[in-house]
Amino acid sequence: MEAAIGALSELGWAGATMTVIAERAGVSRGACQHHFPTRGDLVAAAVEYVGHQQVEELGRRAARLPVDGRRTESILNMLAGIYTQPLFAAAAQLWVAASADAELRAQLLPLEAKVGREVHRLTVTLLGVDDREPETRELVQATLDLIRGLGLANLMRDDSARRKKILHRWALTLEDALRSRRGRD
Amino acid sequence: MEAAIGALSELGWAGATMTVIAERAGVSRGACQHHFPTRGDLVAAAVEYVGHQQVEELGRRAARLPVDGRRTESILNMLAGIYTQPLFAAAAQLWVAASADAELRAQLLPLEAKVGREVHRLTVTLLGVDDREPETRELVQATLDLIRGLGLANLMRDDSARRKKILHRWALTLEDALRSRRGRD
Repeated sequence: MEAAIGALSELGWAGATMTVIAERAGVSRGACQHHFPTRGDLVAAAVEYVGHQQVEELGRRAARLPVDGRRTESILNMLAGIYTQPLFAAAAQLWVAASADAELRAQLLPLEAKVGREVHRLTVTLLGVDDREPETRELVQATLDLIRGLGLANLMRDDSARRKKILHRWALTLEDALRSRRGRD
Repeated sequence: MEAAIGALSELGWAGATMTVIAERAGVSRGACQHHFPTRGDLVAAAVEYVGHQQVEELGRRAARLPVDGRRTESILNMLAGIYTQPLFAAAAQLWVAASADAELRAQLLPLEAKVGREVHRLTVTLLGVDDREPETRELVQATLDLIRGLGLANLMRDDSARRKKILHRWALTLEDALRSRRGRD
């Protein structure tokens, strides 16, 4: 799984062939193909597995965060951490490859929806909000779309200084918006 | 230029060879190569040209928007329009290809910065805000990163219904944040 993510993020979809991934993992191409008939199956499984691991790990780390004035900002920074790692570079490679490949798209869409739901649920839990309320749900979605946009901006360069300022600003704005929402209830 | 964008968005970086692009444009490969020595030169020029055209066109259309209560939302929807067209799919193909290719990255970084500045300047003008103020600048940047994130989400599917709701919510939140900013001056 790690070998597939590494190959995808470094070599792209065109470069991350089954042979290359099997070699990196130190297994035979045949053994690899026994478990995953197509390359789409393999990389989709890899993104799902590594994505799930990272969401779990982030949940554990975030649960230890103090409940203080900077909690929202810390949560956003942790989430952005997922979207600036090789996993996101690998996922972005898959997304753009899938945008030009209907078969790959059909394999990835359910998985993307699943990982998206996991991250959304985690964010709602960490922020301690109730997303049955449409405004709150939209604010959480906007936050995650913003973080994916920041991940995209980080693909070509180290964008961390700019990202830090933007997440600081958005954390304050989001807190205000969620507060005024609660005030109206 | 249009042929390069079309080939990139439909076939990806691996598929959009100089031969394919020249064929789509109805010119010889030699003529193409005379103007653009490498494929990186050609696609970078194409993204810059088409990006600039779209920013100009959007500026013209947005200048005719009424100054009413939904102006911010209309501006955000227009901007999102740029990031959900073949141009964005082509740019995303280039970004992810460049994240795994140092030479292409060196060609694209100055161009990406230039197009980014144009879009930022247009957004500031349309919103009628003063981005010499750091908080305002960060809010505008966050808005554009959100819109790029929404563009990414649209690569694999038609995400327009979800996007519309998120931009509606973001427009209201952004207006509040800019207003409270002004109130403090």
